[in-house]
Amino acid sequence: MPNATMPIETSLSSRELELVDAWWRAANYLSVGQIYLLDNPLLKEPLELKHIKPRLLGHWGTTPGLNFVYVHLNRAIKARSLDMIYIAGPGHGGPGVVANAWLEGTYSEIYPHVPQTEAGMQRLFKQFSFPGGIPSHAAPETPGSMHEGGELGYSLSHAYGAVFDNPKLIASCVVGDGEAETGPLATSWHSNKFLDPVTDGAVLPILHLNGYKIANPTILARIGSDELCSLITGYGYEPHIVEGDDPKIVHRLMASTVDTVLDKIQYIQTEARAGRMQGRPRWPMIILKTPKGWTGPKEVDGLRTEGYWRSHQVPFAEMAAKPAHVKLLEHWMKSYRPEELFDDRGALRPEIAALAPSGDLRMSANPHANGTLPMRELDLPDIKSYAIEIKRPGKQDAESTTVLAAYLRDVLRGSAASRNFRLFGPDEIASNRLSRIFEATDRAWDAERLSYDDHLAPEGRAMEILSEHTCQGWLEGYLLTGRHGVFTCYEAFIHIVDSMFNQHAKWLKTIREIPWRRPIPSLNYLLTSHVWRQDHNGFSHQDPGFIDYVCNKKAEIVRVYLPPDANSLLFVMDHCLRSWNRVNVVVAGKQPAPQWLSMDQAIKHCSSGIGIWEWASNDRGIEPDVVMACAGDVPTLETLAAVDLLRRHLPDLKIRVVNVVDLMTLQPQTDHPHGLPDRDFDALFTTNKPVIFAHHSYPSLIHRLTYRRTNHDNFHVHGYREEGTTTTPFDMVVRNRLDRYHLAADVIDRVPKLGYVAAYAKQAIRDRLTEHEAYIRQHGEDMPEVREWRWTPVDPNLSGD
Amino acid sequence: MPNATMPIETSLSSRELELVDAWWRAANYLSVGQIYLLDNPLLKEPLELKHIKPRLLGHWGTTPGLNFVYVHLNRAIKARSLDMIYIAGPGHGGPGVVANAWLEGTYSEIYPHVPQTEAGMQRLFKQFSFPGGIPSHAAPETPGSMHEGGELGYSLSHAYGAVFDNPKLIASCVVGDGEAETGPLATSWHSNKFLDPVTDGAVLPILHLNGYKIANPTILARIGSDELCSLITGYGYEPHIVEGDDPKIVHRLMASTVDTVLDKIQYIQTEARAGRMQGRPRWPMIILKTPKGWTGPKEVDGLRTEGYWRSHQVPFAEMAAKPAHVKLLEHWMKSYRPEELFDDRGALRPEIAALAPSGDLRMSANPHANGTLPMRELDLPDIKSYAIEIKRPGKQDAESTTVLAAYLRDVLRGSAASRNFRLFGPDEIASNRLSRIFEATDRAWDAERLSYDDHLAPEGRAMEILSEHTCQGWLEGYLLTGRHGVFTCYEAFIHIVDSMFNQHAKWLKTIREIPWRRPIPSLNYLLTSHVWRQDHNGFSHQDPGFIDYVCNKKAEIVRVYLPPDANSLLFVMDHCLRSWNRVNVVVAGKQPAPQWLSMDQAIKHCSSGIGIWEWASNDRGIEPDVVMACAGDVPTLETLAAVDLLRRHLPDLKIRVVNVVDLMTLQPQTDHPHGLPDRDFDALFTTNKPVIFAHHSYPSLIHRLTYRRTNHDNFHVHGYREEGTTTTPFDMVVRNRLDRYHLAADVIDRVPKLGYVAAYAKQAIRDRLTEHEAYIRQHGEDMPEVREWRWTPVDPNLSGD
Repeated sequence: MPNATMPIETSLSSRELELVDAWWRAANYLSVGQIYLLDNPLLKEPLELKHIKPRLLGHWGTTPGLNFVYVHLNRAIKARSLDMIYIAGPGHGGPGVVANAWLEGTYSEIYPHVPQTEAGMQRLFKQFSFPGGIPSHAAPETPGSMHEGGELGYSLSHAYGAVFDNPKLIASCVVGDGEAETGPLATSWHSNKFLDPVTDGAVLPILHLNGYKIANPTILARIGSDELCSLITGYGYEPHIVEGDDPKIVHRLMASTVDTVLDKIQYIQTEARAGRMQGRPRWPMIILKTPKGWTGPKEVDGLRTEGYWRSHQVPFAEMAAKPAHVKLLEHWMKSYRPEELFDDRGALRPEIAALAPSGDLRMSANPHANGTLPMRELDLPDIKSYAIEIKRPGKQDAESTTVLAAYLRDVLRGSAASRNFRLFGPDEIASNRLSRIFEATDRAWDAERLSYDDHLAPEGRAMEILSEHTCQGWLEGYLLTGRHGVFTCYEAFIHIVDSMFNQHAKWLKTIREIPWRRPIPSLNYLLTSHVWRQDHNGFSHQDPGFIDYVCNKKAEIVRVYLPPDANSLLFVMDHCLRSWNRVNVVVAGKQPAPQWLSMDQAIKHCSSGIGIWEWASNDRGIEPDVVMACAGDVPTLETLAAVDLLRRHLPDLKIRVVNVVDLMTLQPQTDHPHGLPDRDFDALFTTNKPVIFAHHSYPSLIHRLTYRRTNHDNFHVHGYREEGTTTTPFDMVVRNRLDRYHLAADVIDRVPKLGYVAAYAKQAIRDRLTEHEAYIRQHGEDMPEVREWRWTPVDPNLSGD
Repeated sequence: MPNATMPIETSLSSRELELVDAWWRAANYLSVGQIYLLDNPLLKEPLELKHIKPRLLGHWGTTPGLNFVYVHLNRAIKARSLDMIYIAGPGHGGPGVVANAWLEGTYSEIYPHVPQTEAGMQRLFKQFSFPGGIPSHAAPETPGSMHEGGELGYSLSHAYGAVFDNPKLIASCVVGDGEAETGPLATSWHSNKFLDPVTDGAVLPILHLNGYKIANPTILARIGSDELCSLITGYGYEPHIVEGDDPKIVHRLMASTVDTVLDKIQYIQTEARAGRMQGRPRWPMIILKTPKGWTGPKEVDGLRTEGYWRSHQVPFAEMAAKPAHVKLLEHWMKSYRPEELFDDRGALRPEIAALAPSGDLRMSANPHANGTLPMRELDLPDIKSYAIEIKRPGKQDAESTTVLAAYLRDVLRGSAASRNFRLFGPDEIASNRLSRIFEATDRAWDAERLSYDDHLAPEGRAMEILSEHTCQGWLEGYLLTGRHGVFTCYEAFIHIVDSMFNQHAKWLKTIREIPWRRPIPSLNYLLTSHVWRQDHNGFSHQDPGFIDYVCNKKAEIVRVYLPPDANSLLFVMDHCLRSWNRVNVVVAGKQPAPQWLSMDQAIKHCSSGIGIWEWASNDRGIEPDVVMACAGDVPTLETLAAVDLLRRHLPDLKIRVVNVVDLMTLQPQTDHPHGLPDRDFDALFTTNKPVIFAHHSYPSLIHRLTYRRTNHDNFHVHGYREEGTTTTPFDMVVRNRLDRYHLAADVIDRVPKLGYVAAYAKQAIRDRLTEHEAYIRQHGEDMPEVREWRWTPVDPNLSGD
């Protein structure tokens, strides 16, 4: 039988426990008040219908448990001067988290219109889940919260992200037993294998088994204690069970258990930091088993409520139709004996208030959670030191991510002392050709190590776990506490965290409107091994749609960059690492590919985000016959190859090449701050010439961004048409008609009056396609004509600036 | 210490084990051949560069383990006549799965151009990961595969989905230790709490610890056996360890262990089916610990390869540059002693071939996996029996999902005997107002039960776990084996399975081109608790973007339906349940809302998918001044309320109301089979009048679908602008300018020459908005004018046909 401990002794005096209970009752009282009351906050008058909200919204079930944990942690924080944050996995229990912030005084400091008075309490109650008020969950508006908890599953990975490189911090993390069923939560327990007791802080998971979800029992509450403790032991923790429904007994148990686990955490940290610990420590955690909706009504209308799913949301409503419910509510609220908790003016009695830690030690005021620490920018190296020298566009090849890796290595070196930058990836850092970062750091790893292991160390700042969810959750926690990072991922599989991105973008949107929250570093995605070069892994690995997906979010939040070569990638990533409150999505290939822009050109081009490549165009001084636009590295390559082809076949055709790095420039200025003014857009794309646009992802994205532009009807977009398999790189573009031949043929089709030469050219192009198909089926690789193609300068005297 | 068993005895004779080993060697030989060889398949000539593929693609590391498991299962299938399928979690090990199918003869039966001859073997080798050949993963093209495994994490949930309601079937499921780190996999172990040993089959998980991912060790291989067995025991399984690197010893261990676990499965099923078992059984599973790239080269160029991450993909390449590598490959392949395995003509020697089960018992030929069972349609009730009677449009309210629930209840009743329909949801069936289905079935639940539990039973066909991933995985497994189902989910959180949908859509796209795979029932999503009525849960619960997302997939696969009321929802769901090889996304509200269409009208309207609502329009016989279009229940309501408002203020304005149920009708016919012909589209939307379009999700979706239509420049779309919080339902639409007032004001702005009456009307509308804002902030609910609004017929004599 696994080692679970059930202590019943505590050194706390009865008086201390009474005060702890009083705080808990106060928090519960305020929680119920927020869910139900419009007015009469202290119940000085008999409760009437007019005091009750017409729409009852909120989640009671999880709240008393959250309040219970909160006060017990508070006691320990005060006794031990701990730097601790509170993560409420069941974020639905918003009223509880808000109640505690108000009791601690933080709420009124931040929101002076909600003072610790009777009037303030009335506002506290009314505003909850009320139009113009505050949300029903622990949200960005909630002091002390760095975790929304509306979408479940990410509390533990957020907690770990928060304590990486924060050696003094303890993240207490309440994991709901509903949330515990999600996949992301289930695997995030393993984060303990990535935590260094020396350089990182600690996480204290508190698995709250209240037994029910919305309408079902929870799995972990129904497998028996033995099996549950086996599971937790298997996850590498030491479980401590606190179980019961009699508050007196459970207070004693909890106080004693909190002391035990904090002692254990302190012991581990002291030993490890003194160099006396070998191997991965077995961190303690708490299993708290108390009834759902604890202290709420046992029955409503004869139906089981406390300790049952009926407590999940609002335990009873229909206040107008059932006057007995009004009485029930009054009875319930009075069961907390508010008169013992608050004085006549609504202030918490001083002996209870004294339980709270002071200043920044209050969990609701912790600067890590509230983003109120001084902003610490990264010390970034000069991108010019990593630039590829470009003698002539397209002359030499490079791997964009390999070039970037040297830069990232030095970002890691530059942050070695401040330890405020990490790289995250699902076991793909090496595959994505970023291995040079291991010259500066190791992979974080605190599980078993073998002699022949490769760059594994507890204090490493490269985080690799085969879980995109955990990578994203860790990084979010790291950013939300003011540090910097990059998530590198295969492009197709970043969809795994679509919904996590979604929630983070919502958080960012919201904090822009909250003055007391400082900006946080941007969430940077480096998507590589992208759709056009997953020819060896096949269809399952081919999906460029993440950038389509992110464009649905608020324009102020989202940026999408498609750097066409290595120097552009350097500029873009450097730019992203200097930004705040954004989600930056950067898509770049890892395979050897032609390089186009010198560093100076790249800086100029990427700063604009879009521009004409004069050196590739032959329309100087006159209107072009056609605009060939491109966004993304492979589309750029194919566009230039098509230009080359057309120049040979149709030398009189005037072609303008426009390259797009910052996709947001295509949108109208009214829709996005980066959007080009219409006049500038028209100057680039003309108002009436055909535009053959080679795009990295689905063609519809370009139409969606440009449909309001003057020349939109002439846009013909080539992109991913959801055609893929295991094949050659060039066959991938051919299957999706993004290749040079299809692009050139489309130009011939769209430009009017090209005559018989064009017809001849088109036939030649068609023949090459047929030949290509036959060639690859015989040889298994692309035709030399394609593999060895090199750009020929339009004007040999034009060096490219 | 948890109960792990390590048997070493087996009743198998040495001769039998030799044959098992021979099969394994043959499969390994064929796997290496697929990765490397173009020609010279039997190595009759000395190996030369010309025999080797120019691009080496494939994953060796996991393959010998997959092959090892395969042959041992085969032995047991034959000995016991088992109905077993093989799920390769590490789907990258495609060459192994293909090799076994070829050895079993299935491959050549399905693909006669790849016979069991030397020439066939050469084709088998060449086609792998080759243009025009087959993908590198276990894919739809692979006989016996119902699981792609390109995106990791879903093998176990697929396995469980396959055996639900398949009491004779055993799904063996190899879980890679890389995959085991993903969240979806980590929680899917708990599927055993939802499996009924009486009415369902069994899953045999085989956790394959080969120790490495792409470039990192795996967590589960580095936590020690005790901790790992604790974890597995905590998941509710009985672990059986098979460990080693000496094939002779490991064969014995594996044979004996496979017998033990199959005995245990048989025992559990026999006891349970005889009614002699109380409570949840502890199902057995196997932990197989063997080296990555087992039997491959121990070292390459002096670097550790076997038993290390370097074996992950192609263990060595650079064949032209390093002639020694050609020798190494020849030596490696010959180490399998092909001459003992295949005769001169390339056929497997008969004594080895005799190991394979025959006919459909071959795992590569199992009809469950290959979709070759007879299609079994659902016995569906008549939707008319559930219809709401509509006397006048908009006169009465109903909850769409409540109405649908009665229909679904009877689908469950109708399938009670055949047990080929299930409902899946993340603890939201009741919340989504589908509780009436519990009149026909229970929730599947085989964990602990208490006296006051609510509709829990092992044999229940409503599947509820708080994991969207597991719901989706189960349903996919259920569909892929030919049964039917519906996944009901909060709209915002369906994004959690974006990437799973993605992979399933790719599977569906691919099987359309594979003649031997029969169509499978469609994947049906019922998204409710949607963006417009998540006012009480707030911003985190508000996201309508899943339908935007699915529109990137192949048009033949995807359908999106936005039924405006309950009768339409009945029609749409019934239609979806009769369809095959599709993903159907249905979005419908659960709140009381006005009902518009009689059943006959709903059938007519939804069959077209789009149409003019004559009874709401006043443009009979003439061109309208404006088209008011709507898609979705709330947008329809707001549109009709706007029409009502405009009629009162501007009685001369000619308004046409167009309602869209099937979003795909908006696309050009060239892009989607449901797309309206341009002429019909123009007839509905005119070619030059303003179209005010109220849409359920992001406005860009409508632009993206319609940008090629004649009148597109006059489309003004209102939809979700990513503005949300906890507030009133009407405030949600106001914040996103989708409300009646904004719609009506937009009409006034867009229709030319309306004059001073319109200016007056607009001011009145603006005033109502200001009033609304003040009202909700005071009262916390919407103005009575909004809450109590009812549609007034345009023509009292017009009953609505």
